[in-house]
Formats: sequence, structure tokens, C-alpha cells
Amino acid sequence: MTRSRQLRLGAFMRPVSLHTGAWRYPGSYPDANFNFAHIKSFAQKLEAAKFDAFFMADHLAVLNMPVEALKRSHTVTSFEPFTLLSALAAVTERIGLAATASTTFDEPYHVARRFASLDHISNGRAAWNIVTTSNPDAALNFGLDEHVEHGERYKRAREFYDVVTGLWDSFADDAFIRHRESGIYLDPEKMHILNHKGEELSVRGPLNIARPVQGWPVIVQAGQSDPGRQLAAETAEVVFCSPRDLDGGKALYADIKGRMQAIGRNPDHLKMLPAAFVVIGDSIEEARTKRLSLDSLVHYDSAIASLSIALGHDASAFDPDAPLPKDIPETNASKTGRAQVIKLAQEENLTVRQLAQRYGGYSGLAFVGTPKSIADEMERWLDEEGSDGFNVVFPYLPQGLDDVTTRLVPELQRRGIFRNEYEGTTLREHLGLPRPKNRFFSD
Amino acid sequence: MTRSRQLRLGAFMRPVSLHTGAWRYPGSYPDANFNFAHIKSFAQKLEAAKFDAFFMADHLAVLNMPVEALKRSHTVTSFEPFTLLSALAAVTERIGLAATASTTFDEPYHVARRFASLDHISNGRAAWNIVTTSNPDAALNFGLDEHVEHGERYKRAREFYDVVTGLWDSFADDAFIRHRESGIYLDPEKMHILNHKGEELSVRGPLNIARPVQGWPVIVQAGQSDPGRQLAAETAEVVFCSPRDLDGGKALYADIKGRMQAIGRNPDHLKMLPAAFVVIGDSIEEARTKRLSLDSLVHYDSAIASLSIALGHDASAFDPDAPLPKDIPETNASKTGRAQVIKLAQEENLTVRQLAQRYGGYSGLAFVGTPKSIADEMERWLDEEGSDGFNVVFPYLPQGLDDVTTRLVPELQRRGIFRNEYEGTTLREHLGLPRPKNRFFSD
Repeated sequence: MTRSRQLRLGAFMRPVSLHTGAWRYPGSYPDANFNFAHIKSFAQKLEAAKFDAFFMADHLAVLNMPVEALKRSHTVTSFEPFTLLSALAAVTERIGLAATASTTFDEPYHVARRFASLDHISNGRAAWNIVTTSNPDAALNFGLDEHVEHGERYKRAREFYDVVTGLWDSFADDAFIRHRESGIYLDPEKMHILNHKGEELSVRGPLNIARPVQGWPVIVQAGQSDPGRQLAAETAEVVFCSPRDLDGGKALYADIKGRMQAIGRNPDHLKMLPAAFVVIGDSIEEARTKRLSLDSLVHYDSAIASLSIALGHDASAFDPDAPLPKDIPETNASKTGRAQVIKLAQEENLTVRQLAQRYGGYSGLAFVGTPKSIADEMERWLDEEGSDGFNVVFPYLPQGLDDVTTRLVPELQRRGIFRNEYEGTTLREHLGLPRPKNRFFSD
Repeated sequence: MTRSRQLRLGAFMRPVSLHTGAWRYPGSYPDANFNFAHIKSFAQKLEAAKFDAFFMADHLAVLNMPVEALKRSHTVTSFEPFTLLSALAAVTERIGLAATASTTFDEPYHVARRFASLDHISNGRAAWNIVTTSNPDAALNFGLDEHVEHGERYKRAREFYDVVTGLWDSFADDAFIRHRESGIYLDPEKMHILNHKGEELSVRGPLNIARPVQGWPVIVQAGQSDPGRQLAAETAEVVFCSPRDLDGGKALYADIKGRMQAIGRNPDHLKMLPAAFVVIGDSIEEARTKRLSLDSLVHYDSAIASLSIALGHDASAFDPDAPLPKDIPETNASKTGRAQVIKLAQEENLTVRQLAQRYGGYSGLAFVGTPKSIADEMERWLDEEGSDGFNVVFPYLPQGLDDVTTRLVPELQRRGIFRNEYEGTTLREHLGLPRPKNRFFSD
């Protein structure tokens, strides 16, 4: 029986996994960063399991890190998202394809064009994850000596969004007549020249691409700062977020959907999808053991730095194989972080080494258990409005993905909270989002 | 028997054809601009015929034209090249994929990344057509009120090329060790930080992509101005050019290969590939009739403007169905153009209408005849060093492409001047180009 509230599932990926130790896990594909065949097989499996969307994480720089961490990092280099997702569009038929594009380091004409093109190639499956790029190393790759300030980035992002969506509306849906006899290919009355001249951007238009199949590709955002939440409430249709737990999820859900209501937007027209690290075992105990085994592949030297940051205190002098000392001084900078580390150490009875490897590996929201226990948790998030679904993070590949698609998804389907078949052909249809009207032309 | 000099064949395309009347031709696909299935079938047929490369023409704006021309133009909108070629990479295995990227309106980090990614996805088949974007309408889409001046564009292009190729060399070919036991993923000694600070560009690096499969994607250029030729001689590996005839081809060939010798580059490491419009019939007469029939689909109102430009004289008062008047005054601006029009009118005995439709349709180098007569012409260009091959322009699709792949290519193969099988897997191997050494690391 199908329930009225339905889970939406995205896959939030790096080719080898987001977990820093995953490339060393038994059965992993350490070369997946540049092995298209592997990524193609992941996307096709996710489509067979009726996932809403595939999303590849991205950066605009090799992240600045100490050489000891750098040399162990499989996340340094990989495919660029537009090229990757376009290639995947050609070998899949239904799954949504979400790419990140930066409003700080790219041009709206390019961004509008690439997403519109991906939307046409994929027949309506593109989504734009709008980011303002917080990584200061990226600025150095784009001609700037210092990073663009936060408020300035958000101001430009808002205007950038207006320009891109305006460019997508350059042509009415029925602008292209293609009448052989008369020789009329398009109706110039149905072409709009944007002529945008704003504080940050000046773009004439029109876009040299027909209106996207979805009207506009789906708008995704991830910022959780106050301006980020406001921008999401005004413009986003999907929010990628990372609450620590159900309470955090519910607070963020209520905040963003409340902001939508305050400005007159229908809260159903935005889906909150927290990232969730999913580790599946035959028993909860086995799943936990798998996770500890995966964490143990994170090198201690790089892991301890992550723990020190989380604690707000240098942890390198602690005994790695003893429990966390009880007398760690509190600092203002990391009150929440410190409390979380202490809570985690107690709950899972972890040594300093295991804690460090957890923070160095993947420390966000996690569901670790059996298909049934994880489905219980997901159902609770859905019922209590902690989220509208999840962006699943696979601990290791391909096994972690196979576990989700062949064991967890059938359990969710049995409960009537996840589809057995795609309802339509476009990502908007999967997500239950309306097709935006053209602001310059009525239908 | 295979001859020592071999033709290289690229396809220079727009989805419906470069000819402005082609969408009205019987059997054409007027919707091909946004129909990926059609373009996929074209690329797969070209690959089956062992073409070296597929190249899609591109612009960064809807070209500014009178509304009467605009409404009849099928070339106004189409897929963006990176998204299109990446999708094609996933459904082909051998054919090269050439995309245009502008050094004036894009960032070197983005350009380096996308080509490197396309090269990895396609397993070594990417080519970068370096353009400085001469269309002034593009500037208005990228925040500028006026177009960037020619000399300034070429100065930036040269530096842009240095930065992009430097970024491609960010990692030694053997930088990625991926040793599970030790946990060492990459050797930081084999990563180079570019730290480029030039007059036009400032880019730190490294690129967050492993070195491309081809070392560098193949470098293509099309500029025929003096700085364009010099840039090509210094940096290009393929030149897309448009000589009017064999004499023009030979002159350009000798000039660019001479410039290469003058700076110590091996002239074999650059392939001259003129655009050639190929119309095939059972007889030369039939091919000419096909071409006239195609030209007749160009609307006279927009065609006459093209003829006026070519003549340097307003042709709209001429009798459309009479021969070209004999007393057209000569102007300094269009001495060559005027002579060419008069020559063409005499040679093919064309009316003013037919001349106008030729100039409004496609007026570059054309081979119109039987498979045998066209193979004769191509062989002569090859033997006399007019070119190293051609970028074939199809008059109409799909028929014009099928004629080339199923009738002309077998004739060229019989003569031993075109391959029966791909010699290797990468575009560099198809073209006989060396793999560039990494400037920062020895092999």
C-alpha cells in the first residue's frame, strides 16, 4: 500500500565514496575517480532501484591539506560534473542528474547554457546545485588573491539565480515552429531578450538554447547559514543538508518550510534531503563492525587532526588506544563539537584512535544497522517531518551501494514509502515539483 | 594498398547541417538541434566509417541578424558542446570529439578541467578548438559593453593556452599509486603547483584532475589572421581552415607549415583540415541539381543580404531571375568577393536568385560530384599539399552523411588514402600526433 508521504532518495557520491578510507576497503575500486565504466554501473544500479537522483560532490581546487593527508586522499581528483553527468545521461533513462555550479566563479550565461543543454540531452533530468563556493583555495584558481566575502557571495548568488532562470525563459515553449512549407523556423515574438543590468551582473541574452524540458532544471541548495536558508526558502526546490540527528533535522525542516510560508511559497515545493551515511549488516552488530573496520583504514596521522578540530583541542598527545580523557578543557569555539565527541565516545565506547578515524572518515548523520532497523529510522524521519527523504552516502563501493539497492530499497517499497516504478520521466515528476511558468510568456 | 600520405577526416557539423536551408530538405530532421538520438546516430555512423573526429560548431550568443533572417534560421539554438560531446563519448568508442572553448569568455581552470575530464571519460578522444570569439554579441552576454579588441584577445589566448596546458601537467602520469597496504594514494612529489601570475591571468593550480589520457587533448585552431596563423604554428595540432580553392589551400598550408619550421616544430605534427561541403550524386549533373534544389530552400529575402555583402553592393534591386548584371561597380572593400561572385555566376550559369541562395546557404569550398570525382579532388589536395584531409560539411542530414560514409569513404579506402580500421584508440593516434611530454615531470 502506498502511503501519502513518500521518501525521495538521492545518491550523494564521490566515485570511490565520500569516506576517506573507502578506497582501501576490500572489493573497492580505487581507480573509480577516472574509470567511467564503474560510475556508469553505479548510476544504472541506482536507476534500477528507482532513485530520484544521482549527485556527484565537487570542488574547484585540490583542497589545501597537509602533505600527510594529501598523499592518502582519494578525493583530490575526479571527473568534472557536467562532462560526467552528460555522459551518464546517455546511458540512463530516468534517474535525475544533479551538478554543482558556482555562482562566484562562473558566468551565468555558461551556467544557464550547460544546465539547459543537460536537461535537453537527458530529456528533463537536470538539477543545479547552486553553491557560492566557500573553499578559499578556489579563489586562487580564478584570478583572485583573496576569497570573496560571504555576504558579497550571497548577493551575487541571488542575482545570478535571477539571470540564469531569466535566460532559461528566453524562448516560449512553443517558439519553434519548424514549418517546412513556409520556411518559418521560429517565432521571433516568442523570443525574449533579457537585457539584465544589475549591480553584479550584466547579461543581454537571449540564451542560445530552447527552454529546458523541465522549464527550469530543478534548483538545489545546500547552504545552512542564515542567508543560505533564506535563499533556499526563496528559490530552492531541493535542500541538501546535514543535520546531526532527528532533532536537528526537524528544526531545520520547520525553519526552512516556515520561511517559505512566510513569503507565500507552498512548502511542498521544496524537498529537504539530509545526507545519510548508510551501513547495512545482517545484524546491527555486524553493521557496526563493518563501520569500525572501514574507519580503521583511515590513517591515524591525518585522522587525529580531524579529531583535534572537532574537540577544539590538540588530541595528538592522547593515548590512541585508551578512552578519551575526561578532563578536556572546554573552549568557546567548539562547545557543540566537544559535546558531540564526548557523547559519541560514550555511546559507542570508542578509543581515541577510533574516534579520530571516525572524524577523519565520515562523521555526519549515519544509519548503521539492518535493512529493517534503517527503514524504521527513515520512516520516523519522514513521519516526524525531519526530512522528505535522504541523500544516501555509501560507505564503500560497490558493496555499500548494492546493499542499499538490493536490501534497503525493497524494504522501503514493502512499507509503501518508496516507489516501485518511476511516476514520470522528468526529475520534477519524480520529486513532485511543478514545472515553472515562463516569466515572459504565458502557456 | 596503403599510401604513405593518408587523409584525415573530421565532420564539421550543426545538428541540422551548416546549410541554412537544410532543415527544409526532404528527409531532414528539423528538430535535431535538441534531439540527442539523431546526433548520436550521426556520430555512430561516422565512427563506423572510421572518421577521425566529430566537431560541433558553436557560438556564445544568438547571432544578431534581421528578424526576417532570424525567424528562418535553424542555427540559432542547439546543445552546448561539452554536454553534447560528453554524452556522445558514452555511446561511441573511437571517434575523436572536438569542442570549442573561448579564451576570451571563459576561465582557464574551467576549460582545463572540462577537457581533461572529457579526455578521461572518452579514454583519450578530446580535442580543444581554441577560439578567441570574434562575435561581438557574445561580449554582451558576459558583462562587457564592447567587444574585446583583436590584439588583446590574441594576447590573452596565448597566455590562456600556457595556463591550460600547464594545468594539464599538474600530475605526473604515474602520480597515482593507490597502494592499499600502505594507504598511499598519490605521490605528492609528482604533483606540480603551477602558480601562474601573468599579465592577463593568475591561476594557482594544481588542476584537480589527473593528467589527461592523451597527455593533452589535441589542440585545434581556426584563426586565419596573421596572429591566428602564428598562434597555430606555435601551438596547434589541427587547423580548421576555409580556403576557397586548391591554390588557396596550398598557400595556407605552405605558410603555416613554414612558420612551424621557422620555430623548429615538425610540420607533420600539425594537420591542415579545410572545411569541405560534399554533395554526392550518381552523376556530377545530379549532384549539382541536388545542390541547386537545396539552395532553393533558402529564403530570398535573407539570401539577398548575403549576396550584397559578398558583392560589396546592394543586390536587392537586381532582377532575381536574370543573370547577374555586368556593370556592378568595383569597391575597395570587396574586390576579392566581387570577383568570386562573378566567377561563380559564369561557371555555373546562375541567376541572381541562385547566387543569393548560394551565399545565403553555404558558399565555402565544395566538392560536388560522384564518389569517384570527389575522391579524385581529395586525392589531388592530399598529393599537392593543399591539406592533410578535410572537415566534411554535410549539405543535409541524414542523407548527406550517409552518402559520404557509404559511398565516398569506401572509394577513398579502395585508393589506400583512408583507413579501413582505426590504428589506435586515441584521437592523437588516429591523427598521428605525438603525446606531449609533461613539462614538469620526465617519464
